[in-house]
Amino acid sequence: MVRPKALTAVLMATPDDVEAQLYEAMQAGDIEKLMATWADDDDIACVHAGGVRLVGAGPIRASFEAMFSNGSIDVRPLQVRCADGNGFSVHHVVEQVRINGESGPQMVLVLVTNVYVKTPQGWRLLVHHASPASKGEVQEVVESPSTLH
Amino acid sequence: MVRPKALTAVLMATPDDVEAQLYEAMQAGDIEKLMATWADDDDIACVHAGGVRLVGAGPIRASFEAMFSNGSIDVRPLQVRCADGNGFSVHHVVEQVRINGESGPQMVLVLVTNVYVKTPQGWRLLVHHASPASKGEVQEVVESPSTLH
Repeated sequence: MVRPKALTAVLMATPDDVEAQLYEAMQAGDIEKLMATWADDDDIACVHAGGVRLVGAGPIRASFEAMFSNGSIDVRPLQVRCADGNGFSVHHVVEQVRINGESGPQMVLVLVTNVYVKTPQGWRLLVHHASPASKGEVQEVVESPSTLH
Repeated sequence: MVRPKALTAVLMATPDDVEAQLYEAMQAGDIEKLMATWADDDDIACVHAGGVRLVGAGPIRASFEAMFSNGSIDVRPLQVRCADGNGFSVHHVVEQVRINGESGPQMVLVLVTNVYVKTPQGWRLLVHHASPASKGEVQEVVESPSTLH
């Protein structure tokens, strides 16, 4: 018998691997693939843009199942900025999401903080915090290197 | 000469210490105390509720200075949930913030993810991601322990 979760574990050897699988799962509307990216931890937490905080695998799974019942999520990580530590990695992402608005399909931007942790099974997602980006064109203000030296 | 930053470093021996100082600094409108909670890292990042992502000490300082120019921030961490690892700690916070609305002072709730890291100088803040809470009464959906066993 094929054991997809064990196979997946082998493939997620880095935070980038987990993030790639996370967005592939959203794009495919694949709930098992998506849930396999999360750490096996009671404290995993997810905030969808404009939503409440969901803590634990049950509420997180239910929220994505509800989304996927309307189809997959057309989401693209446009910009990714990483802050790595020993056993954890924070990815700051600007997502572009295509939604069906009142006047047809439209693109919206979402600011996301993804926190990955190293587990005995490989790297996994601990936190996904998304919030609607501001209406302006600029989504990130980054300190110029010239001001640091 | 008193060296407040070195003194502060001694006091922030745990993530809880940093978080306490973070909210004290906001409540006092004390920019130096607030900036002392952040890690000395180019990748520190802050998303204010509804705002853009600010990366680096310069933009983060400027944003809080702008807020403090209108006075301190009347903020209270109502609920804190922690997910700790080796050298990092994620705090999931529900903040109650008193703002001056169109019809007078009002309370709003904000969902915050604070990520702390252990540095040679003690624990420090790496990420502060805030987003407006939903309009409903429930801000967190937590898996019931009974569903886990």
